[in-house]
Amino acid sequence: MPRLNENYLNVQDSYLFAEIARRVKSYEEAHPDKAGNVIRLGIGDVTRPLTKSAVDALHKAVDEQASAETFKGYGPEQGYEFVRRAVADYYGRNGVSVDADDVFISDGAKSDTGNITELFAKDNVILVPDPVYPVYVDTNTMDGKKIIYMNGTEENDFLPMPDHSVKADVIYLCSPNNPTGACYSKAQLKEWVDYALANEAVILFDAAYEAFVSGAELPRSIYAVDGAEKCAVEFGSLSKTAGFTGTRFSYTVVPKELAFLSSNGEKMSLRDMWNRRQSTKFNGTPYIIQYAAERVFSEEGMKECMENIAYYMENARVIAETLRKKNIPFTGGVNSPYIWFKCPNGMESWELFDYLLENIQVVGTPGAGFGVNGKNHFRLTSFGTHEKTKEAMERFDRLF
Amino acid sequence: MPRLNENYLNVQDSYLFAEIARRVKSYEEAHPDKAGNVIRLGIGDVTRPLTKSAVDALHKAVDEQASAETFKGYGPEQGYEFVRRAVADYYGRNGVSVDADDVFISDGAKSDTGNITELFAKDNVILVPDPVYPVYVDTNTMDGKKIIYMNGTEENDFLPMPDHSVKADVIYLCSPNNPTGACYSKAQLKEWVDYALANEAVILFDAAYEAFVSGAELPRSIYAVDGAEKCAVEFGSLSKTAGFTGTRFSYTVVPKELAFLSSNGEKMSLRDMWNRRQSTKFNGTPYIIQYAAERVFSEEGMKECMENIAYYMENARVIAETLRKKNIPFTGGVNSPYIWFKCPNGMESWELFDYLLENIQVVGTPGAGFGVNGKNHFRLTSFGTHEKTKEAMERFDRLF
Repeated sequence: MPRLNENYLNVQDSYLFAEIARRVKSYEEAHPDKAGNVIRLGIGDVTRPLTKSAVDALHKAVDEQASAETFKGYGPEQGYEFVRRAVADYYGRNGVSVDADDVFISDGAKSDTGNITELFAKDNVILVPDPVYPVYVDTNTMDGKKIIYMNGTEENDFLPMPDHSVKADVIYLCSPNNPTGACYSKAQLKEWVDYALANEAVILFDAAYEAFVSGAELPRSIYAVDGAEKCAVEFGSLSKTAGFTGTRFSYTVVPKELAFLSSNGEKMSLRDMWNRRQSTKFNGTPYIIQYAAERVFSEEGMKECMENIAYYMENARVIAETLRKKNIPFTGGVNSPYIWFKCPNGMESWELFDYLLENIQVVGTPGAGFGVNGKNHFRLTSFGTHEKTKEAMERFDRLF
Repeated sequence: MPRLNENYLNVQDSYLFAEIARRVKSYEEAHPDKAGNVIRLGIGDVTRPLTKSAVDALHKAVDEQASAETFKGYGPEQGYEFVRRAVADYYGRNGVSVDADDVFISDGAKSDTGNITELFAKDNVILVPDPVYPVYVDTNTMDGKKIIYMNGTEENDFLPMPDHSVKADVIYLCSPNNPTGACYSKAQLKEWVDYALANEAVILFDAAYEAFVSGAELPRSIYAVDGAEKCAVEFGSLSKTAGFTGTRFSYTVVPKELAFLSSNGEKMSLRDMWNRRQSTKFNGTPYIIQYAAERVFSEEGMKECMENIAYYMENARVIAETLRKKNIPFTGGVNSPYIWFKCPNGMESWELFDYLLENIQVVGTPGAGFGVNGKNHFRLTSFGTHEKTKEAMERFDRLF
């Protein structure tokens, strides 16, 4: 009889967003008259369609697949050279140098941040912020790894900093952060890089929201910090940048400088391991999507993306303005599509979830779903339409 | 310092097809005059473009993504209901009953056969045929699992049968087989299902080439055998069926009947575990590709696919005819796009590889790349054009 991976018994049954969907569905069934009234500012999904560059490129690539002369079968598992280079050029335009050879194209930052756990042995200390995107915790739990937490709180603006008394081997950071919207400064990231280099730790840096950083003073990549190439892997995505949540394209940078010794003193390159993992368990991102992504990363393509991001950031401004008016403390809303606020009137986050759903039919994400430090906080996203976001915040204004 | 997964030290550095590519490139550089002459019948990649149904559907879905009213963001990680149902209907038309709820849509059978190792604990006995598609061995090796082999030989027509003295927990079967082209009969698959039920083992059944089975007497799915739903997971793909090698679409069936007890006697459902795995480490297959796949699985869509398959099978016929004329023993060539033949003149497979490349500029795949039992065998594929395949076999005819 097969022995199953019993670590799966240690992950909670219901994924956060599934539980939210369940509660919304149950409310709508109980109140059919209100069902049409529900405004979803919960899950971080975009609503703007694909940009013109992306759509034109997708059509062109589909036409290539329709003819034997231009048909593309299996591509390189790492991604086509043309798109790896486009990602490296995009980094370059943001002032960061990345080798195209260290860029791996994939189908989602969720896949990559999850799958990379395979490269690490069981007996590592994994340091994860709380609150946090649930995937880091769930994937390490499913893999039987020991997780320790660092606290994101109002006191540190939800930006936990290194504690030198803690010896971590693998560190997850996400900036701009999901769920808190908080964004590390360059000086703060430098502290993390210094800690990692001193402790020979690896930082897994989730930069999925980098495109929302405005202005030059905040870093959009951990590689903006010198030495990061010796200690950090970075994950990027077109999901929020270009509305690819249903189209799927991501990239992971694993610098060739990242190497560690095996128990026998053999030098093991993390980049080569990731390359082996992807070559063996992945067959590449669809050609048509890589073709479109290359166009998205061009200056013209990115200009169109930034128009969509500006649209969303106008929503963030409306949400932030309402919270400020009510004297409700929050992080995010600038440099991030997320707004993370303290539940009013001492409510707990699931309590506020039900309260908002029942009274104003606004769906958000309870902070408790992201960790114990989220117990009294709540996440709203700016990915709705202007009309719905404005309407939601007017209802919120009347409620409190 | 992070401890890395040292099982990676146990997988060979060079993936089979990378080594082939290296040798071909080196030959072409040394003989620039012959480079244009090389015919590739090695890697199992298709050459026919996407079908009209697929192309039309892709364009339509791209247009949906261009408008806010029809835009699709995150879809269900398991795949859209419409395409899970299309897969179940496709099974139904082939006389097999599968619950759409047990169908999981993904981006490749390579991903899924690789990722499913995560559901099993380390201390299982993994039974793998030799010769075999390298991914089963590599992924289990990277995961530190104990693999035992069963021999595919000329004596058993490369269709190893259960050995009741061997107690396996997880069994990999691939039929029609890659690389040997051999195809299990229903009676033979029933022996495997009986073995698995008697030993409470799980069969991981790779059916990626099922569409090449012609005639009703051979099973296209392990679920054609009663009881298989209690012991078998099945992997399917559009890569070879619909030319999706560069477009990426696969499906995995994990029947809800598949459950095993944990060490504490807790019932664990393999389907629920796979659901958890995919929900946590995967964000779904691109919407536009799922939309196209649904059309491909329709009766009209599949009719177009079968025209391409008939085209390839004509190549298989040409290859088989040449081998028969030369009295070279082989398997496959019917019910499979692969032809697996014994190297002539007592040659070993890499020796034949170099011999064919140098003398007639035909690239095939050395059997040794698939396991020790492939040492004296060689794989050709029928995925070339009629012209190139005919030309390759004329050269072969003149050489021997």
